[in-house]
Amino acid sequence: MGVLRLGYAHIRVTDMAAARRHYTQVIGFRPVLDNSDKLYLKGWDEWDHHSLVLEQGGVGISKLGFKVSRAEDIDKIENRAVRFGVTTSRMSKGENPEVSDGLRIILPSTHIVEIYHEQTIVGREVGTINPELCPPGVAGMGAPRIDHALLGCDSVSETEQFFLRVLGMYQTERLVADLDHQDTVLATWLSVANRGHDIALIGGPGYNGKLHHLAFMLENGWPDILHAAQVISRAGVPIDMGPTQHGVTRGKTIYFWDPSGNRDEVFSDGYVAQRDQPAFIWTADQVGRGINAITRTLNETFTTVLT
Amino acid sequence: MGVLRLGYAHIRVTDMAAARRHYTQVIGFRPVLDNSDKLYLKGWDEWDHHSLVLEQGGVGISKLGFKVSRAEDIDKIENRAVRFGVTTSRMSKGENPEVSDGLRIILPSTHIVEIYHEQTIVGREVGTINPELCPPGVAGMGAPRIDHALLGCDSVSETEQFFLRVLGMYQTERLVADLDHQDTVLATWLSVANRGHDIALIGGPGYNGKLHHLAFMLENGWPDILHAAQVISRAGVPIDMGPTQHGVTRGKTIYFWDPSGNRDEVFSDGYVAQRDQPAFIWTADQVGRGINAITRTLNETFTTVLT
Amino acid sequence: MGVLRLGYAHIRVTDMAAARRHYTQVIGFRPVLDNSDKLYLKGWDEWDHHSLVLEQGGVGISKLGFKVSRAEDIDKIENRAVRFGVTTSRMSKGENPEVSDGLRIILPSTHIVEIYHEQTIVGREVGTINPELCPPGVAGMGAPRIDHALLGCDSVSETEQFFLRVLGMYQTERLVADLDHQDTVLATWLSVANRGHDIALIGGPGYNGKLHHLAFMLENGWPDILHAAQVISRAGVPIDMGPTQHGVTRGKTIYFWDPSGNRDEVFSDGYVAQRDQPAFIWTADQVGRGINAITRTLNETFTTVLT
Amino acid sequence: MGVLRLGYAHIRVTDMAAARRHYTQVIGFRPVLDNSDKLYLKGWDEWDHHSLVLEQGGVGISKLGFKVSRAEDIDKIENRAVRFGVTTSRMSKGENPEVSDGLRIILPSTHIVEIYHEQTIVGREVGTINPELCPPGVAGMGAPRIDHALLGCDSVSETEQFFLRVLGMYQTERLVADLDHQDTVLATWLSVANRGHDIALIGGPGYNGKLHHLAFMLENGWPDILHAAQVISRAGVPIDMGPTQHGVTRGKTIYFWDPSGNRDEVFSDGYVAQRDQPAFIWTADQVGRGINAITRTLNETFTTVLT
Repeated sequence: MGVLRLGYAHIRVTDMAAARRHYTQVIGFRPVLDNSDKLYLKGWDEWDHHSLVLEQGGVGISKLGFKVSRAEDIDKIENRAVRFGVTTSRMSKGENPEVSDGLRIILPSTHIVEIYHEQTIVGREVGTINPELCPPGVAGMGAPRIDHALLGCDSVSETEQFFLRVLGMYQTERLVADLDHQDTVLATWLSVANRGHDIALIGGPGYNGKLHHLAFMLENGWPDILHAAQVISRAGVPIDMGPTQHGVTRGKTIYFWDPSGNRDEVFSDGYVAQRDQPAFIWTADQVGRGINAITRTLNETFTTVLT
Repeated sequence: MGVLRLGYAHIRVTDMAAARRHYTQVIGFRPVLDNSDKLYLKGWDEWDHHSLVLEQGGVGISKLGFKVSRAEDIDKIENRAVRFGVTTSRMSKGENPEVSDGLRIILPSTHIVEIYHEQTIVGREVGTINPELCPPGVAGMGAPRIDHALLGCDSVSETEQFFLRVLGMYQTERLVADLDHQDTVLATWLSVANRGHDIALIGGPGYNGKLHHLAFMLENGWPDILHAAQVISRAGVPIDMGPTQHGVTRGKTIYFWDPSGNRDEVFSDGYVAQRDQPAFIWTADQVGRGINAITRTLNETFTTVLT
Repeated sequence: MGVLRLGYAHIRVTDMAAARRHYTQVIGFRPVLDNSDKLYLKGWDEWDHHSLVLEQGGVGISKLGFKVSRAEDIDKIENRAVRFGVTTSRMSKGENPEVSDGLRIILPSTHIVEIYHEQTIVGREVGTINPELCPPGVAGMGAPRIDHALLGCDSVSETEQFFLRVLGMYQTERLVADLDHQDTVLATWLSVANRGHDIALIGGPGYNGKLHHLAFMLENGWPDILHAAQVISRAGVPIDMGPTQHGVTRGKTIYFWDPSGNRDEVFSDGYVAQRDQPAFIWTADQVGRGINAITRTLNETFTTVLT
Repeated sequence: MGVLRLGYAHIRVTDMAAARRHYTQVIGFRPVLDNSDKLYLKGWDEWDHHSLVLEQGGVGISKLGFKVSRAEDIDKIENRAVRFGVTTSRMSKGENPEVSDGLRIILPSTHIVEIYHEQTIVGREVGTINPELCPPGVAGMGAPRIDHALLGCDSVSETEQFFLRVLGMYQTERLVADLDHQDTVLATWLSVANRGHDIALIGGPGYNGKLHHLAFMLENGWPDILHAAQVISRAGVPIDMGPTQHGVTRGKTIYFWDPSGNRDEVFSDGYVAQRDQPAFIWTADQVGRGINAITRTLNETFTTVLT
């Protein structure tokens, strides 16, 4: 009945060759399909055909795909979306290579979200029978999968309601101006199941349609963050923040820039989220600690640069 | 509609004072209620009243509680349970202190499972507003929460079907005799959402009603496993296996014995499980690698000692 | 024949109560002697009586003590010091509580260095017979020992020569303006044995007599750096840099401020230094990467704030 | 005047092709010279020409080389060796490729030790000017250097005296039968500078001339031990013990077998040893905890299999 996960993200890149190098050699994803101006990639632990699509031209996020369990979930979401009042349209099988038919929705924040129930199964690289811990020959950080995205919105509340009421997510944490104004949500973190967040939203003027960052998972926690940092050091990747631990989600993290100027994150660990958990509330005066629990300060770019 | 998680486990202990010391000073749980012959405890990151209950007398598992989202989920599960053919009865609010009314079910494996929709919220020790990364003064391993249990069954398949069809879980991994006999499941790992397992079953003659181990989560992965090992070393806790990494779930782990002889596990990391993932299949000849991916051998007690 | 290690550091603090709290509750050192306006402390893995002395009044470094193996080493160092041309005087047993007689030297950089051959042995807290991995009840970061100091000098070369020729150290790394001017050493890292540095020097106008930072060792590498960062987060300690990995020494590190404004470091790992290693050379344009290999940039305070 | 370190080890292997694969693909050393029946290798962080030599035929240790600072140290060691009463002979430059002239000594334990003052400098793979944290393309565990060896002796005391009195080492830890018989040393750990051990000796009947294990260093502590374990898992390398932490030295460790049956160790972290430290004493009843501080038991092969 609900959404399984963020299944894919299409991001725009100004230089496909540089982007390909970055997402394969630094992030460690594998190309699975090269369609002239679109490159499809997946992480080694993902079984579906692709989770990341690089699109030539510009920066930012082109669209996001959320996977549902069954074909009939599409109908239910369509009904709820129409009732909610967002623009929807049906998409056909093959509009996205190896992806089933589904639904395309324009969010209040103008982001495009696609709902689908199937991708061609390529299989995890560790195999299905008596699998290895990890595949040989993984490059760079060796990210096993995509994790989440943080989207910009002019108004957080409206788009948040979409994810809560139409896609059935729940809120794990929220950032408010102060305790007397908890309804004015400046940022929100939303989860489908046990992850601290599958999608997050940050508000600001002119933020509609923008991407704050796209995050890739690392499996081995703080040690993998060090390894990622060493990859970053050798490759000369510009860092935005970290390594550090978030107060929000308690995940370990580094933020850095892809060659086009999109912000990437590698994310690992964090608490086990639950639908019945009392949501954590952060007040604006503590946002530094919420984002960077160690330095407890925000660098300026973090709140000003979106693509 | 489904189960949220393993919410509590009642285990029997031969010596309450020694057990109390172990679960507070080694595991790092906090006592919340001391009811003559039952001690109720919780981890620092759990908000519900308790997740572990020590019962004076004997060894093994007394019962397990699974939490559902809403009161009406109880009815649905009751209907499915009756159709499945297991014995059910209603339980009243307060039969378990601070736990709502619900359903009591006797599994094919004779284990008792309770389904409930509410516990009194005590709150995470890090607070809800601008929370800390972890509370001060956590003892021993500082386990934030209970994780999962591995139960013994005379026949895995029948009890597995209960968890799949009545509680709505899905299978992440299974152990079979060989590839020609994949239906003969020797062990199975079942998940509710994104965890590698919330419950697991292992088959063997006379295993009905027995506990293989109860697992507690650690949040910081392999570094926390070292810290737990150092706690074990100083406290003189007898180890059954580890530190190591599982092939199954890819979690990092140590197995050790509580003072009564029940097997505990501390578990951290592992892959992000998904309901649509192709289940991993292990064959009996590779079970050593499945349980202990590093040594790739099983110690004898692991498959012979249950309580 | 040579120096064993940096044995103790006396630093000045503006507020003894706050400093005591910081060095016991955050760093995790133990008070061993409280002499009105001087507090003597040691790490849990040090056997000598003390390694850190807090002196009421002001900020910065009051003096450093280097331990030698035998009483006769004092004479040899005195001879070499006199020949080198620094001011020396004999110090008596007991001038420093529980410290033997020795030599007091005023460096070209005006820092005071004491050479001694003995301190009263208090013993490691883990004991000597069948020791534990670590003692129970260590507070905060649980630093086992002092590690090194970075001193300011108006001219690095002259003071460096003292450490090389009088104390018998060797250079592991140096920072030069550029490859055409390798003799103009802007900073230098000097070792006694296998550590990446036991003392380091940084040059700048008016730096004579100043302290850049005093470093404490952590034993478990990157995992201990995370733990230290979590202690910092909870205690609200202001951070100067990190967590990160140095290019110089390859140590893992966090820099932070004590309540008086002295810069502390916790340091762990790094390569095994050897007397015959070709010294690493850093050019000024790469100093950011040398200090912070991950972000590859220097924060402003790092090169401007000394005490 | 003293020894700098264990500079090289020659070990015998039954199958050169398998050994080459193991020491390059699993340990991560690089071949530098292939001399028909001898393969010379080095770690990426070593500057001297080689540190490991594989010799075709048999198993065990062929000889060990210790490096001294200066040519004149050779004479001093020769004098002390003659006075000590061991057999010595001069070796010429080039007897070992790229190694200076020196001294060859037959230990009381019949092991052959060579003392040399120079090897051709090849350089660290990270370079000398503005070095990287680690080189690209390191295979397997990526061990940066050789660490130490544990040798078998019929009588520990006599050979220990050689290392103490002739090579100028000091004892960091010793294993004795019990506290009433501390002079009967069953095993000893000896250090040159700041490492917990550069050489160690274990006693037993018929142990003369034998190798217990050869150890390679890992730089990043417990996280590197996990990574090494994952390499072991994928490569199917048989494990003898671990991953675990030693009580002796407090190093983190895994023991495993090379294809010829020689025991290898990867070793990381541990305390900073000092020449003036009171030596740790272990009694035989606690040897399990000394070797494996976590399980606190010894596996049988550990004390019975030497090559």
